[in-house]
Formats: sequence, C-alpha cells, structure tokens
Amino acid sequence: MLELSFRTERSTELIDITARVRDLVAEIGTGTAALIYVPHTTAAVTINEKIDPVLVEDLEVALTRLSGDPDHFRHDDKDGPNGTSHLRSTLVGPQQLIPIGPDGLALGTYQAIFFCEFDGPRDRKVYVTTL
Amino acid sequence: MLELSFRTERSTELIDITARVRDLVAEIGTGTAALIYVPHTTAAVTINEKIDPVLVEDLEVALTRLSGDPDHFRHDDKDGPNGTSHLRSTLVGPQQLIPIGPDGLALGTYQAIFFCEFDGPRDRKVYVTTL
Amino acid sequence: MLELSFRTERSTELIDITARVRDLVAEIGTGTAALIYVPHTTAAVTINEKIDPVLVEDLEVALTRLSGDPDHFRHDDKDGPNGTSHLRSTLVGPQQLIPIGPDGLALGTYQAIFFCEFDGPRDRKVYVTTL
Repeated sequence: MLELSFRTERSTELIDITARVRDLVAEIGTGTAALIYVPHTTAAVTINEKIDPVLVEDLEVALTRLSGDPDHFRHDDKDGPNGTSHLRSTLVGPQQLIPIGPDGLALGTYQAIFFCEFDGPRDRKVYVTTL
Repeated sequence: MLELSFRTERSTELIDITARVRDLVAEIGTGTAALIYVPHTTAAVTINEKIDPVLVEDLEVALTRLSGDPDHFRHDDKDGPNGTSHLRSTLVGPQQLIPIGPDGLALGTYQAIFFCEFDGPRDRKVYVTTL
Repeated sequence: MLELSFRTERSTELIDITARVRDLVAEIGTGTAALIYVPHTTAAVTINEKIDPVLVEDLEVALTRLSGDPDHFRHDDKDGPNGTSHLRSTLVGPQQLIPIGPDGLALGTYQAIFFCEFDGPRDRKVYVTTL
C-alpha cells in the first residue's frame, strides 16, 4: 500500500490526483483493480470530467448547496462546526475502485480522479493499493 | 475484463443490467467479488429494488430533483449544459463491488443492478471484471 | 464470506459496526482489502466519524431531510410507502472497501464503519469478505 500526501488550500476543493494515482499504480506494477482510499471523515474521492475547470467549480458549489444549512448540524468539533463536511464525505464516499487494463487504469476518456476536500485547508493522505 | 455495450433511450433512465452482469460473471468463471465499472462522467451504477417499476421511476425523478436547478451550473460542453448529470454521476458513483458466493453474485433477495443514465440518449459501456 | 446479523431499533439509525467487522476480518485472516456489503435495498453502509454521538444524529436527520418529501414517491410496498428509504440507500451505497494493512483495517484515526438503517426496525445482515 502506497500513499499520497498533500496540503489542500481551500475549504471545499476538488483536486485532480489522476496522474499521481497512475504513478503509484505503475510503481505497484500488478493487479486487476486499483483501490483509492481516503482515511478522513471530511473528505472523499470521486471520478468526474477532467476537461472543464468550470465544471469542477460547479461541483464544489453544488455539493456545498446540497449538504444544506450548516446551522442544521449541532456537531462542533475542535475545528468548529463542520457537519455539512461530514455529510458530503458520506454522500461522495471515501473510496474508488478502478479496473486495471493492459494500459493501466481503465478510466473512461473523460474520467479523472478527484480528491474532494470538504473541510480544508488541511494536510491529507490518500492510500493506493491494487487487488 | 469483459464489457456490456448498449444505447440508452431517455435523458434519465435506470436500466436493470443484472442478468447481463450475471452472464459476464459466469463467463469469467472465478473470483471473490465482481466489479461493475462505468467509464462515463454523466452516468453511474447503483443497486436497488427490482420488483416495482414505479420505484424505478420514483428514483429517476428524485435524483433529478435532488441535483437541483440546472441553471445553477455554468458548465456547458458540446452536448449542452449538463451540470446536474455530472453531479448525479458523482452522488451515485461509477462502480459497484458485489461478493460472489457459491451461487454467483451474492445480491440480496430484492437487489438488482441498475445502470443509471443521467444524460441520454447515448451509447454506453459497462466494464465487468472479477477480483 | 462471513456475515453479521442483527436487528435495528429505529426507522433511521446509524450503527457503528467497526468492532464486529474487525473481528470478522481477523477471523478470515488474510487479504489486501475488506469488502463490507449490505444485501438490502433500504439500508446502506458508510464510513464517518466515530467520536461524537451528536454527529451521528445530525447525519441521520440530514440524510432524511436530503431525501425529500416522502409524498413525492409513489412506491408503496407491503411495508408501506418507503421511497425515501430506497433513495438514501442509493445515495450512500451498499458497500465499502477498506485496505488491510499490517495492523488490520487501514481506517483513518477518526473513521468508523456505520450500518445505515433507513427503513427499520428490521432484521438485517452484512456480508464481510476479503480480497
């Protein structure tokens, strides 16, 4: 199991990690599918279109809107009230599993892997392993 | 890795692909779990109840409603503004992983696998492999 | 493939099953990742923070609110109209896949595994296997 480490910059931020995941999968060298796992409870990982930076911003805004009014959550940890961050983590989910074909990750033509920061900025990790 | 290919008929459409996935898993013949992977960014795959066609329509409507006002998305690719389609793809997700038991896919009594079209009609593919 | 069996107590209820999953993974003894699979269509499994019981209640309320007005669903099975339960099952999803490291499940410091009951009380099962 290998891992990525990085610092996020904004409170809500989708970060394209496709190239870094591809590198780790190549380093591992074998496997039928790659597991990308986020060990955090206010972050997630998704797969969506890589082409249009406007879409990424749209998704950041839409996921925030979807998670509702922050005042509806009573949870308040040492980092402040971040209930909507936890909800978005559950809705998007902490892992993706992608088949590996003869040319590596079998992502679709338009697919990229995005780390989803929902409570940044923070230091974050992503685990990558193959099955 | 095997694949299904088909054309969807409507803009939003949940299509029961359970039988076709079972056939591919039987063709592969071995494995502990079956990975069903959608290589598209405006589609997804989910597991839900197969019995009631009214429920499938309910879910199509509810997912569309949940994704919000299309005018809140600025993204507009060559196929037109389809931001809500991308959001629904991220919320439902592009893959399912189902254990394989002695009798094949260990789906629950009421579970079926549904391909989720969120921006049709289109030609679509689904990858199936076992781990 | 091993399984957990239990009865839920409330209509919507997130239940921490981390310790029971860890026990089954230890019993299986080998593997690169653990698959936790829910064979029901009005339940799900998620990963979120284990520390604060208030957060768990917040998530139960927020997922119910997010799934919308029950009257917007026409589906009505022998257990009554439970369309929002099916929607929540699709949004959260029926499985989680967690890497296994040298010390067992590679959950993050604050992560726990929660069975999500969306239509209880009911008798429920969870399948656990390793890949």
